[in-house]
Amino acid sequence: MKKFKFELKKEDGKARLGKITTAHGEIDTPVFMPCGTRATVKTTNPEELKDIGVQILLGNTYHLYLKPGDRLIKRMGGLHKFMGWDRPILTDSGGFQVFSLGTDVRKKAKLMKIYEDRVEFRSYIDGSKHTFTPEKVLDIQDNLGTDIAMVLDECVSGEITHEYAKKSMEITHKWAKRAKEYTDKKKFDMAVFGIAQGGIYDDLRVESAKYINSLDFDGNAIGGLVVETKEQIYRVLNTVIPNLEIKKPRYLMGVGQPEDILEAVEGGVDMFDAIIPTRLARHGTVFTYRGKMNLKTAKFRENKTPIEKGCDCYACQNFSGAYIHHLLRVDEILGIRLTTIHNLRFMMRLMEDIRTSIQKGEFQTFKKSFIKKFER
Amino acid sequence: MKKFKFELKKEDGKARLGKITTAHGEIDTPVFMPCGTRATVKTTNPEELKDIGVQILLGNTYHLYLKPGDRLIKRMGGLHKFMGWDRPILTDSGGFQVFSLGTDVRKKAKLMKIYEDRVEFRSYIDGSKHTFTPEKVLDIQDNLGTDIAMVLDECVSGEITHEYAKKSMEITHKWAKRAKEYTDKKKFDMAVFGIAQGGIYDDLRVESAKYINSLDFDGNAIGGLVVETKEQIYRVLNTVIPNLEIKKPRYLMGVGQPEDILEAVEGGVDMFDAIIPTRLARHGTVFTYRGKMNLKTAKFRENKTPIEKGCDCYACQNFSGAYIHHLLRVDEILGIRLTTIHNLRFMMRLMEDIRTSIQKGEFQTFKKSFIKKFER
Repeated sequence: MKKFKFELKKEDGKARLGKITTAHGEIDTPVFMPCGTRATVKTTNPEELKDIGVQILLGNTYHLYLKPGDRLIKRMGGLHKFMGWDRPILTDSGGFQVFSLGTDVRKKAKLMKIYEDRVEFRSYIDGSKHTFTPEKVLDIQDNLGTDIAMVLDECVSGEITHEYAKKSMEITHKWAKRAKEYTDKKKFDMAVFGIAQGGIYDDLRVESAKYINSLDFDGNAIGGLVVETKEQIYRVLNTVIPNLEIKKPRYLMGVGQPEDILEAVEGGVDMFDAIIPTRLARHGTVFTYRGKMNLKTAKFRENKTPIEKGCDCYACQNFSGAYIHHLLRVDEILGIRLTTIHNLRFMMRLMEDIRTSIQKGEFQTFKKSFIKKFER
Repeated sequence: MKKFKFELKKEDGKARLGKITTAHGEIDTPVFMPCGTRATVKTTNPEELKDIGVQILLGNTYHLYLKPGDRLIKRMGGLHKFMGWDRPILTDSGGFQVFSLGTDVRKKAKLMKIYEDRVEFRSYIDGSKHTFTPEKVLDIQDNLGTDIAMVLDECVSGEITHEYAKKSMEITHKWAKRAKEYTDKKKFDMAVFGIAQGGIYDDLRVESAKYINSLDFDGNAIGGLVVETKEQIYRVLNTVIPNLEIKKPRYLMGVGQPEDILEAVEGGVDMFDAIIPTRLARHGTVFTYRGKMNLKTAKFRENKTPIEKGCDCYACQNFSGAYIHHLLRVDEILGIRLTTIHNLRFMMRLMEDIRTSIQKGEFQTFKKSFIKKFER
């Protein structure tokens, strides 16, 4: 039986403090969800993620469907058991990867083709042919045993005409409607979220938000903003969010720069995911409240202090900047383990501070003060 | 002031149970020392190594001298503090890497030249020119703040003539004598071990063992057996060990296959190091009491059991073979973290079982029973 609840605890302007309850535990919102793409958040183990304070992970349906396969994961007892993670998991629909990995740059060939009723694609691993439908991606996510599933949508880049964006949105809407009907019929244990699209066009964004909202999913997401400019993201947020149900969680997909998160929280967003903190970490770049810095640069060669004074992460509690600099310079895995741990803990601290500031009714003050230091 | 003591607690045939005391704690022997080549045991952190039961780590003087530099490490408070490891450390002399990395295969050029009084070499990183002398490598190890230092020796491959092996041994002996004189003069805090060489020639091995033993170092090592055949290793052990002081630790350098360790313990060796367990782990191969196996092979695809039933390591306590198989197949770092943890814990369990069997006077029985299962 489905166990899913969203409680709106407090508002500070449009910023919201909430709590999501799932079968695998509670999630305080606003929340940041690290990406566990292939059943692991790159370089980390579940114990470390718990120490960091991660409340919910994101799993990638596209990757897990191809390898090791959702049916295998089901036979192994589901994704939670398979990867040793007993807290909540949200899975995406696989759509984003189908579209973003859908063009093989070397071969100049489309590996993906969209039809009114389905999307066909070839595996980036072995070229094998696959089909995703709105129903199938829900079955896959059900096999994974996710807590929160996402519907299939068409993800389009900002660089498209109004005409194409409208056509794409209409496909997304048809698929969303089918997803909702299938969800009602199958009575899944998992919650299912809809995704509003519409490109960079205000009229389409409003139309899409209204339509997706009307389908009455467990939560509403805003898709297609990953690669856009900050101005486009902020404008879309302002047009979309007022059209999404206030009593349901709102999830901004793939946006994870601290300043963007603050902007979106201000607009009323509750959930975030992004690969940015972990990807930057693997390139040696760390987040701190004083901004970003790259530990590979020579100035850290003899740095005796931790990455960030006052940070309670394992890296900052045990090692100097100089040691991590050394590890990164000689390509030792412990280096990117430590920067990953720090960046994820930074994101958790940021979200904790955001939640505290909303609780106190001081979100605006916190936001201004954070951005001033972070972008100095 | 130097703090170093070796206590011989019990003998079972020639196999010995002992205890080494250093400034950073005690070490039960026979002991296996994982390689922390570049100030980290590849993929692991110090906390994990302690959980695994690691008593002492090996650091590589050659690598640390080149990057980040022994003087930098000294300024950072020494190797223990730099890498967050407060248990004992043994460092090699750098000689092995100078000689083994001394030939640039692509350029067909020697990057290393041996003189009577020194060895000159070029860095494998940037081609810069460096000189090692018996005195200098001790100063480097002193800068690192090691607990046990090794003297500079010439490491020769088995494929050399008796004439060259003899000449090489004589250089090694001259260097050892200078190292001993320098050690006495400088009164280092660290213990210093001599290294007996002599290639595959019994007469030279005996001569070298007697000479190195006569110099009265804190311990005696047997070098130059890494790439030899098992038969050569075992023959050399039988000729060398009886000539090494019984009341001092004996260290067989670079040998780490379980069956070789058992053979050497039987001959009276107390200390071991090898990259084999960690290197194999990074290729997906794990040690178990039932032998070696590669987790990348298809038969582990749906394996619901841990790598080894009864193993108390983090990998076996938390994950299935299928999950680790998946991680290794998609090149996720957590995969090689888990195989590394398992293999190191395997080595610790093996050494614990060896020590228990000597304590009980049942080493022979344990050895036979282990090898029967391991090599089945």
